[in-house]
Amino acid sequence: MNITKDLYGTSLSLLTDLYQFTMAYGYWKTGHLNKEGVFHAYFRKHPFKGGFTVACGLDYLIDFLQNLKFSADEVAYLASLNGSDGKPLFEEGFIDYLRDFKFSCDIEAVAEGTVVFPNEPLVRVKGPILECMLIETPILNIINFQSLIATKAARLRLSAKDDQLLEFGLRRAQGIDGSLAASRASYIGGCDATSNVLAGKLFGIPVKGTHAHSWVMSFDSELSAFETYAEAMPNNCVFLVDTYDTIQGVAHAIEVGKKLKAQGHELNGIRLDSGDLAYLSIQAREMLDHAGFESTAIVASNDLDEYLIANLKNEQNAQINIWGVGTKLAASFDQPALGGVYKIGAVKENKDSHWKYKIKLSEQLIKVSNPGIQQVRRYYYPDGQCMADMIFDEIEELPTKIKVIDPSDSFRNKRIPDYTEYEDLLQPIFKKGDLVYKRPEIKEIKERVAQQMSLFHSGIKRFSNPHIYPVGLEESLYDKKSALILMHKNEE
Amino acid sequence: MNITKDLYGTSLSLLTDLYQFTMAYGYWKTGHLNKEGVFHAYFRKHPFKGGFTVACGLDYLIDFLQNLKFSADEVAYLASLNGSDGKPLFEEGFIDYLRDFKFSCDIEAVAEGTVVFPNEPLVRVKGPILECMLIETPILNIINFQSLIATKAARLRLSAKDDQLLEFGLRRAQGIDGSLAASRASYIGGCDATSNVLAGKLFGIPVKGTHAHSWVMSFDSELSAFETYAEAMPNNCVFLVDTYDTIQGVAHAIEVGKKLKAQGHELNGIRLDSGDLAYLSIQAREMLDHAGFESTAIVASNDLDEYLIANLKNEQNAQINIWGVGTKLAASFDQPALGGVYKIGAVKENKDSHWKYKIKLSEQLIKVSNPGIQQVRRYYYPDGQCMADMIFDEIEELPTKIKVIDPSDSFRNKRIPDYTEYEDLLQPIFKKGDLVYKRPEIKEIKERVAQQMSLFHSGIKRFSNPHIYPVGLEESLYDKKSALILMHKNEE
Repeated sequence: MNITKDLYGTSLSLLTDLYQFTMAYGYWKTGHLNKEGVFHAYFRKHPFKGGFTVACGLDYLIDFLQNLKFSADEVAYLASLNGSDGKPLFEEGFIDYLRDFKFSCDIEAVAEGTVVFPNEPLVRVKGPILECMLIETPILNIINFQSLIATKAARLRLSAKDDQLLEFGLRRAQGIDGSLAASRASYIGGCDATSNVLAGKLFGIPVKGTHAHSWVMSFDSELSAFETYAEAMPNNCVFLVDTYDTIQGVAHAIEVGKKLKAQGHELNGIRLDSGDLAYLSIQAREMLDHAGFESTAIVASNDLDEYLIANLKNEQNAQINIWGVGTKLAASFDQPALGGVYKIGAVKENKDSHWKYKIKLSEQLIKVSNPGIQQVRRYYYPDGQCMADMIFDEIEELPTKIKVIDPSDSFRNKRIPDYTEYEDLLQPIFKKGDLVYKRPEIKEIKERVAQQMSLFHSGIKRFSNPHIYPVGLEESLYDKKSALILMHKNEE
Repeated sequence: MNITKDLYGTSLSLLTDLYQFTMAYGYWKTGHLNKEGVFHAYFRKHPFKGGFTVACGLDYLIDFLQNLKFSADEVAYLASLNGSDGKPLFEEGFIDYLRDFKFSCDIEAVAEGTVVFPNEPLVRVKGPILECMLIETPILNIINFQSLIATKAARLRLSAKDDQLLEFGLRRAQGIDGSLAASRASYIGGCDATSNVLAGKLFGIPVKGTHAHSWVMSFDSELSAFETYAEAMPNNCVFLVDTYDTIQGVAHAIEVGKKLKAQGHELNGIRLDSGDLAYLSIQAREMLDHAGFESTAIVASNDLDEYLIANLKNEQNAQINIWGVGTKLAASFDQPALGGVYKIGAVKENKDSHWKYKIKLSEQLIKVSNPGIQQVRRYYYPDGQCMADMIFDEIEELPTKIKVIDPSDSFRNKRIPDYTEYEDLLQPIFKKGDLVYKRPEIKEIKERVAQQMSLFHSGIKRFSNPHIYPVGLEESLYDKKSALILMHKNEE
């Protein structure tokens, strides 16, 4: 499935901020078509006050980039835009340029499902600066959101441990594709299934669901509602028991469960959607077990998040096997946006000239961007666990003795022992605009998350005051950055 | 533009929770195809602890419903789903039924841009219960999100007063259509323009933008960056002045502004994107005025929301004319989901039988649903201002003396004087599945918001402890609901 072709019926090439076009026009108009740049998309802080982030969204982005061209219709729209004097913003020559536009950048990115950290480029774009800019906003739109949701799902997976985890967020998600992309990222991050049928079909995610309160209310009694459902779908019976009175509802489910059993079927589960989930699940478990339904699952939903699940499981002994999570996951309720940014690291006048390194200053050190053509190297302990990540300049030779320095606190630094195993996280995705990456299946991406999560110390995975995994700039890149800061400060 | 046909390239008919299909199958399989229901989509609490909500999203929903049918591809997917025993969930007969499915419900809805209140149905669906259920989730997905964003934009409009308000949220929005739908709802709710070019083209929204920090950084100096931009686009110059040092940036903007002026152009504005916006805007205003740029606008962005804008304007005397709002608006950061629900009000065995009224009980009174076939009547004072809203049962004759009772507090009630002017808010949208509604243009919807906002007492529009606009159940509907609650309580 190709997202921009199969999901969207319109070209998405205009899915960007207008200023990307006005800047592109600026370069075109003033003879800077050959100016090249390198940009990095990264975030500065983990979401949810957490200690890790799961990169996600690359597959959507690849589709977007493969379809990046401007149709007659699109250029006509751009040609219709006017400036403050009522005259066209763009000259016809630029419109012609866009009509013949062919995307030609090199793109490196971290594989979907990789655990990543602040300041690490998730996507690196190198090429004509005009092109780098046009794709800034879609990169951020896609990667920010799906990484946010995959991270939230990974946190839910941590709290649910080996229980089933279902994503039920469609009705509260932010728009149509807000829901679809959330279902995809939730599955990748740790959910087992979604309620969203279209997401199931588009992405190959398992779908789950049985019935709502309205089913019960549309019959004269709860018992007859359960009986009718069991008659229709004896192989899919999870009864929602809280429409009127939960304990009564469990009794009705058991009554119908006995009939199912007599017919050779199973009572798959009951679902609790309100009330005291700990108390009710314990009561329900006892009633079910007592009636011989030891393998009938107890599903819970109702504004669940990772904290509530952990609390119900660990503190309250709730007897819940399957967790349905909606709003808190699909709309990432406690932090609905990841603040990813896209900053220029270097620029050159044309492809044959030298790179000039660039930083964006800020009064806050954390907001000063890193210069260079960055790559991320992940070092491993002999047992395969992750040791530290290093952001380094790919076009400079590395010293023999490696030292990484925390860019926001130079006293935090770490020597990497010689001969330490490592892996470079940014992989080639596009070369001169052509896709060179073998896109993994969604299942492989999901498995990668689980595997990645196992490579990190549990300290980074706890919810309160997580351990800060060491990530720093390679020493010579750190020095270059410091020199650039000083140069700008002296100019003031 | 038709959203489901022009924006999405795939049919969206599977955009629903699986349980809607399993329930539909349940009705089909057990001979309840003719069972009818009436459902209401409503919310229980205003978002943002506010006193009003702006209904939005109907146009998207109409597109969805007009295209609701199941292709061979879609039914094949449903036919491939299995139950717990590994056998198909759905019989072939049901798959055939879906293949021939034709949507046949009556739908009433509140016009987009109407100011609405808790418990008021925004959408009412009446018809075969199986169909009512299938469309529950898309209704909630679309209406919840767009109403949330339109409300946030209306709040921003209140704080920005007559200043320009721009939506810049694409990079932080929740997915691709999360951004597009947010741009649409933001414009309707109160924004003047968006940065999102595709939203501009699809919905006919004005688009705005000039340049980013990366433009400045791609030149050897800020001054040459501004000069180059002015050379390219003298009719679109709003210079971003905070890449290195804001005050220096303003000086550079003025320097280039003088050249623009000499050529007969204008310096449209400068933009502040960091730092102390009050202090810097006051400084910048002085510098601009002193240099003769009294009409040059000062644009501000950087994590703005309605509270910060109100504070900057009212408390800090910030000299800002144009407000760019991103994350806090497009992702509705402080409350990313509206908790709208869709509840059954009545059911009948077939179209010739009588309605049976239904409620969903809950331990919290606010969560007990209202029964009946509901309409909302809005009463007006002689001066045209809104007096109170009444939810009543459309198929019952109203008493001559009207009394409305707050469903969560029966001591709060209000007599409506005889001969009070009123309007019924729910309008016919579909009759037996056919569209009967003249869809307004987006500009009309936007104007409706502004006009609606003027009809309400300022108390409901304040941000802290807003006045609660009176909304209640018509007395006889209240009595029916009470009787239903008692009936269920006695059954326990």
